[in-house]
Amino acid sequence: MTLLHEPHHDGSPMYVTEEAPATGSEVLVRMRTSATDPVDQVWVRTTYDAEPTYHPCLATSRDEHTVWWEGRFPVHNPVTHYRFLLASAPRDGQSEQRWLTGVGVVEHDPPDAFDFRISSHHAPPDWARDAVVYQVFPDRFARSAAADEREVPPWAVPADWDDEVVFEPFDPRTPLQYYGGDIDGITDHLDHLAELGVTVVYTTPVFPGESNHRYNASTFEEVDPLLGGDAAYVRLATAVHERGWRILGDLTTNHTGDTHEWFVAARDVEGAPARSFYYLLPDGSYECWMGHGTLPKLNHADPALRTAMVDGPESVVARWLRPPFDLDGWRVDVANMTGRLGAIDVNHEVARLVRRTAEAERPDAFVIGEHNHDASTDLDGDGWHGTMNYSGFSWPVWSWLRDPDSPARPFGRPVPVPRRGGPVVVHGLREWQARYGWRATTASWNILGSHDSARIRTLTGSGDVHRVAAGLQFTLPGVPMLFAGDEIGLEGVNGEDARRPFPWEHPEAWDDATLAAYGGLARLRHGHEALRRGGLRWAHVSDDLLVFVREHPAGSVLVAARRGAAPAVALEAGPLGFGDGTLLLTTGSEGDLAEVGGLVTVPATDGPSFSVWSL
Amino acid sequence: MTLLHEPHHDGSPMYVTEEAPATGSEVLVRMRTSATDPVDQVWVRTTYDAEPTYHPCLATSRDEHTVWWEGRFPVHNPVTHYRFLLASAPRDGQSEQRWLTGVGVVEHDPPDAFDFRISSHHAPPDWARDAVVYQVFPDRFARSAAADEREVPPWAVPADWDDEVVFEPFDPRTPLQYYGGDIDGITDHLDHLAELGVTVVYTTPVFPGESNHRYNASTFEEVDPLLGGDAAYVRLATAVHERGWRILGDLTTNHTGDTHEWFVAARDVEGAPARSFYYLLPDGSYECWMGHGTLPKLNHADPALRTAMVDGPESVVARWLRPPFDLDGWRVDVANMTGRLGAIDVNHEVARLVRRTAEAERPDAFVIGEHNHDASTDLDGDGWHGTMNYSGFSWPVWSWLRDPDSPARPFGRPVPVPRRGGPVVVHGLREWQARYGWRATTASWNILGSHDSARIRTLTGSGDVHRVAAGLQFTLPGVPMLFAGDEIGLEGVNGEDARRPFPWEHPEAWDDATLAAYGGLARLRHGHEALRRGGLRWAHVSDDLLVFVREHPAGSVLVAARRGAAPAVALEAGPLGFGDGTLLLTTGSEGDLAEVGGLVTVPATDGPSFSVWSL
Repeated sequence: MTLLHEPHHDGSPMYVTEEAPATGSEVLVRMRTSATDPVDQVWVRTTYDAEPTYHPCLATSRDEHTVWWEGRFPVHNPVTHYRFLLASAPRDGQSEQRWLTGVGVVEHDPPDAFDFRISSHHAPPDWARDAVVYQVFPDRFARSAAADEREVPPWAVPADWDDEVVFEPFDPRTPLQYYGGDIDGITDHLDHLAELGVTVVYTTPVFPGESNHRYNASTFEEVDPLLGGDAAYVRLATAVHERGWRILGDLTTNHTGDTHEWFVAARDVEGAPARSFYYLLPDGSYECWMGHGTLPKLNHADPALRTAMVDGPESVVARWLRPPFDLDGWRVDVANMTGRLGAIDVNHEVARLVRRTAEAERPDAFVIGEHNHDASTDLDGDGWHGTMNYSGFSWPVWSWLRDPDSPARPFGRPVPVPRRGGPVVVHGLREWQARYGWRATTASWNILGSHDSARIRTLTGSGDVHRVAAGLQFTLPGVPMLFAGDEIGLEGVNGEDARRPFPWEHPEAWDDATLAAYGGLARLRHGHEALRRGGLRWAHVSDDLLVFVREHPAGSVLVAARRGAAPAVALEAGPLGFGDGTLLLTTGSEGDLAEVGGLVTVPATDGPSFSVWSL
Repeated sequence: MTLLHEPHHDGSPMYVTEEAPATGSEVLVRMRTSATDPVDQVWVRTTYDAEPTYHPCLATSRDEHTVWWEGRFPVHNPVTHYRFLLASAPRDGQSEQRWLTGVGVVEHDPPDAFDFRISSHHAPPDWARDAVVYQVFPDRFARSAAADEREVPPWAVPADWDDEVVFEPFDPRTPLQYYGGDIDGITDHLDHLAELGVTVVYTTPVFPGESNHRYNASTFEEVDPLLGGDAAYVRLATAVHERGWRILGDLTTNHTGDTHEWFVAARDVEGAPARSFYYLLPDGSYECWMGHGTLPKLNHADPALRTAMVDGPESVVARWLRPPFDLDGWRVDVANMTGRLGAIDVNHEVARLVRRTAEAERPDAFVIGEHNHDASTDLDGDGWHGTMNYSGFSWPVWSWLRDPDSPARPFGRPVPVPRRGGPVVVHGLREWQARYGWRATTASWNILGSHDSARIRTLTGSGDVHRVAAGLQFTLPGVPMLFAGDEIGLEGVNGEDARRPFPWEHPEAWDDATLAAYGGLARLRHGHEALRRGGLRWAHVSDDLLVFVREHPAGSVLVAARRGAAPAVALEAGPLGFGDGTLLLTTGSEGDLAEVGGLVTVPATDGPSFSVWSL
């Protein structure tokens, strides 16, 4: 399936001149069609207070391959939907009309769901979009020297670092198994992160909580002493910032632990101010996360809870963003369910407050919401900057690269991860990119897995396919987030199993080729604006092969990913924008590309391979 | 393209047992697959406070053609999204997974935009869904005996009933040309409506306004004396109700005229309470509809305006629903823009208030919003019951039936109406049905045109194609709304031209075959629950032929629409559910259908034809 002749637009600098135009201003957008496409007239259609309006586009440049169209429209609403109408010259007395939307060209008149979108809310911070994020699950990453001196807490089931992880969800030891990794352990290993090209450290919760995952906080006032306490956290934050990196916390806005000081007071103390923080029911029960009584749900309709948690300078959200901790933002846990309960839905208000409160402390703060399915209605530009992009990245990539014999378990569905061919996978990628919009997509995290899912290595079953996955993670639009250990080929069949301790003492077990590939990919991304900010144009898609271009005025790149043996593909040099062909990176054995007779041939491979060339 | 083997579900009684299940309850849903489909397991996936959850389905019946699956899910939120996951037995170590959503089967994991939806808000009233609606533009429908005695108002450009309509938008006479039709004229002609099977009379605005369309009201306190005043309106409402029919008004919630008593006070009287009703700007200008200074925009963020207009028993919305006028509900003009202005968006609150206020007066009140594009986010179940379905009905049907040489002008786009083949058209119908949801789709108006668009007869260019359009209007899900005159083949190239006076004195100009077809279609619809409440299953689609089944426990029907000569199509009797074959209606020359060797053959035609058979 050759796609180079498709009309194209996306939210990148080659197509949109202003990323966050003010309401009341005009924005200029560009669109390209193939010179072989009989399109005759183009309009950009927006809505104005929900009323469709049309603005003509002009063909501003034309060569033998490509016609560029330009149009302007007023930014009337904070978030403006738009799409292009392409009309061909009447033939046989008929006119032909097609739409270009975020999913590509459609022949019928579709609903707005997949329209392009531009937002007048200010853009996510540059550091967050240019980042390589490294996720650390503190209990399992590394033990500092101080760790040996700490007492195992009463709730914990102690484990030695080399012990196998208990990972069955029904086993009571699963949340209690305690390896004793700590914050100074992270600080000790920042050189490893530097070699990987990491620029953002994101730790899962560090507040005290009677579990190894700490998503059941008992307070938001201090860092768990078992992790080294506030002082250790300040050391980490300082060391991270000294390297010019950033650090993100993990906040459970949806719930606390049932040991939380707020909840204990709410439950036990008549007239306690925190009673309104939760949904306490007359029968003594309370609303909680998915039926888990240890995780009472917070009531964000309550102004007092908002002030304590998300709104204003004394909130939890604000305080940790100030010295001495200086967090640069938050990953928000269970962002999808936060503020939602039956007929109540104040989710968007909470998202706005979290962002506003964070930005009041640090103008370049970043907030990213956890969503394991469709975050689209929550990413309108003034709430979460982006999402952990399971739906728009992980699941499509998983379904392309899944080893049929993998023991990897699915995350959030009752059937194994399916295996699908390239065209179906790309259809999915395009729909999600359209639904989230370019800006939210590029600020969201491309994750191959997390502490909640199987490991990508277990899913792919081999290093060479794993490296193809990593290649997509660093080259498709979005911010790569590695779960610590992915880079050395750590395995795990589900989220709990994925939390295996990092085998610092067993470098012989590390997959060095994969480690080198991650480092190379990070350097490539840092070195090429096209990979951080460029547009995405699909060039060729077949079951085993994905070829695409990341386009940027500063220089474009060509990417080829094969999940197995794949035939050579000849691409037209002109529509491709070919001019160079220097190999920038390969996990296989390819060399430079050259144009021969107007064609550029991406070579055949006899197995999985991922390569990037300069265009 | 034969579609009878596709998995199917919709919101009709064969598939959903409860239309408006209460939150906290469980709902039972059914889904069918072909016996030849290798599906092995089925789940229904819902979201629970935006968290995906899966509920298993069981195969509850199975014959040689069809497997029926049943599942239950809790109604946790007021509007619940759902879709079906179909897993096939693993083959070659792989599992195959497909989704059934409102647009049909998809192979990738899509966003929620096209999920099925069920609402716990109470359902639209039966009378509105079972209706045949007749739209009257009072100035052009009929003059009563009293009309001759009225003086032409100073703003008007008088016209004789047989004069040609001035319809160019730039011509100043267009909104002022005054034919003097009145309310008693409507009352005089109710027998004509009865012959057509009409059950709901909807008039465009009857409040005074200095134009022939009266969308620029100068008061909401009385019916325009030029139309016969309040007394005439009471006579009409009484006569309508005596026939067991209903009557709907037309309310401009977005704006008033600049001659409106509220606006005059707001503009001229310092400290007038109505100043907050509008957006008056410091420079003396004000916000208005699409730049038209004669239509100042109402400020629905203002509580006082809400009380006057939409909220509570003294509001305009409420008062006209009480005796002596007794309106049964409202068509809401410019519903899409109401309450929206730049960063302000209180549209949904206004929609909720209109509905709540109307239902407080009459529990079975109906409110339908005008939207000329995508109303999906405004149809969540507690606001407008439905929309004038231009996008989900008119444009797909227009694009299928357009005469290439038609002078009909498009409505709301800068290019002529396109002509498209059946598969593209059905793709559009399916997406809109999915996006609006079954309930809002079936409560929305299937319109072939209105006072704002070209006439269907001008679009189709011939009576036989016109009758195919009418056939779809009465047999696709949704409520048929006729713009008075469509039934006799009145023409018009745009909305203004479509407002030609009804030629009561020229019956020789009436298209009697079309008039008879409309009456027959209305009788068919009234006589068959399948056409009012049945599901919609596509059977066969090709460029010139659409075949579908409307399914209902009380008896199903088969519909075939051809826009021109079309070949015979053999359908499998089993998957079709064939058992009868009696011809119920045809605009052509077909007879009964019979099963031969397991096949039912819908015959070839040599031209446009529309037919319905009992199954």
